[in-house]
Amino acid sequence: MSTPPPAPIAFLKGHGTENDFVLVPDPDNLLELPAAAVARLCDRRAGIGADGLLHIVRSSAHPEARAMAGEAEWFMDYRNADGSIAEMCGNGVRVFARYLQRAGHIGVGDLAVATRGGVKKVHLVKGTPAGEGDITVHMGRAVLPEETVTVTVGERAWPTRNVNMGNPHAVAFVEDLDHAGDLSTEPPFTPSAVYPEGVNIEFVVDRGERHLALRVHERGSGETRSCGTGACAVAVAAARRDGVDPAVTGVPVTYTVDLPGGRLVMTEHPDGEVDMTGPAVIVAEGHIEPALLTRSETNKR
Amino acid sequence: MSTPPPAPIAFLKGHGTENDFVLVPDPDNLLELPAAAVARLCDRRAGIGADGLLHIVRSSAHPEARAMAGEAEWFMDYRNADGSIAEMCGNGVRVFARYLQRAGHIGVGDLAVATRGGVKKVHLVKGTPAGEGDITVHMGRAVLPEETVTVTVGERAWPTRNVNMGNPHAVAFVEDLDHAGDLSTEPPFTPSAVYPEGVNIEFVVDRGERHLALRVHERGSGETRSCGTGACAVAVAAARRDGVDPAVTGVPVTYTVDLPGGRLVMTEHPDGEVDMTGPAVIVAEGHIEPALLTRSETNKR
Repeated sequence: MSTPPPAPIAFLKGHGTENDFVLVPDPDNLLELPAAAVARLCDRRAGIGADGLLHIVRSSAHPEARAMAGEAEWFMDYRNADGSIAEMCGNGVRVFARYLQRAGHIGVGDLAVATRGGVKKVHLVKGTPAGEGDITVHMGRAVLPEETVTVTVGERAWPTRNVNMGNPHAVAFVEDLDHAGDLSTEPPFTPSAVYPEGVNIEFVVDRGERHLALRVHERGSGETRSCGTGACAVAVAAARRDGVDPAVTGVPVTYTVDLPGGRLVMTEHPDGEVDMTGPAVIVAEGHIEPALLTRSETNKR
Repeated sequence: MSTPPPAPIAFLKGHGTENDFVLVPDPDNLLELPAAAVARLCDRRAGIGADGLLHIVRSSAHPEARAMAGEAEWFMDYRNADGSIAEMCGNGVRVFARYLQRAGHIGVGDLAVATRGGVKKVHLVKGTPAGEGDITVHMGRAVLPEETVTVTVGERAWPTRNVNMGNPHAVAFVEDLDHAGDLSTEPPFTPSAVYPEGVNIEFVVDRGERHLALRVHERGSGETRSCGTGACAVAVAAARRDGVDPAVTGVPVTYTVDLPGGRLVMTEHPDGEVDMTGPAVIVAEGHIEPALLTRSETNKR
């Protein structure tokens, strides 16, 4: 008796402000996606290529989601490009919601998505299946631990603000984004014990009144074109630097944040909730060759 | 009367030694693929992402192919990642042939493919649809013009050998591949008039007897994981450096060439023909959102 050939695996490719993802819809959580398979899918030349992978699973079908998902029917099982597990990805949540809309699982209005960083509330406007129309994600409250690090690039060093958005960020205000240098590898920071599992590092400049621009090193993925939780962390860090705290003033504050891959608009509310609004686009849809998930690498230099 | 929505466009993604391609099958040459659309498809974050695009067209349907294709039923309309036109791509021809095999247009054995660099003969062994089994491409004869350039990286400079494989190559033998530095932009060369339309530049080291390794800057695409015509140029340049010319000895000479993305085996025959043997893999197949081809860029930093 011969084994039937493995079935092709459905995928989509999409991005939010050019933070790009391979989406793998798997409602019943039937696929095996070990780190090596995720890394092959995210390999930009030998695979599909992306900053990360969105494994789309019903909360009821995933052991990590069952207990915490509450009203959230869907769980975003997010993986970094190297296959490692991640708590949350703000651009990923928008693209995740765009997929659910496109697949007909949801319409417009409010939606809850379970992530390892907690349940996230999303607001969708009417959009095209490919992704016209912005999506707003309620990213939760920022926590600002007092412990901070100094980040070094070449001969320059900056103090940072520590902002946790479900994942940790070290935010450095700099004079020129070019001073961040090559961000494909993690810039060194001290004391390293503050972030024992590593940290996302943002370099930020002012572009105008409540208008910022940033570059980011994402833990596990290198420099990316955009990082949603990073944009939130940067907006909150800038507000505090500017002496603004909506919890004190009772008035929301909004920052526009330009990233290499596009623009996000961040609003911090008096209750501490941070909203992020931006685009989410699906560019292609199809099937992955099953051999890609199991192929061993050979003959590499 | 409303316009019907544009039809999704079929695509595949594949690679040969990690020189990767978006394949767009379009037998009757009905698609408009201006440079901007190709650049968006090859954009690794906002599009699908690839080193180049293989537009797969019947020779009879393409004005550039009709007159020169002869027995070659299919024309490889190859584009660089920036949308510019290219003559030929050796890894691309293997992946092009793999697609034709997968789609059932051809079987095993010999095949002729029309390219802007001439008609190329291909030999396919029995392979899986995804791409097990090597493919041999008869890459044609190398031309070795006497005019050469000196290539400079930082404080180092090397004389090069000028090898034309349908497209131009400047081959530099170096002590260490790291000396080539950052190849994302074209290293300067003098005199620049030798290659008025630019040149592919290979940096080569010896790994053993008739065993080489290289890094390459591909004109219009930056550093790539592999370049098939570059591997041919390097094998011929190495043979001449080693005092070997099959046209004189009457005996074929074979070099193994390790590239960042895998291994190719090159044989130069007494009649001057160079064969290249290596893998060709399809990793995914599906449809592109039509909006990707027409979307204008907005809100970029």
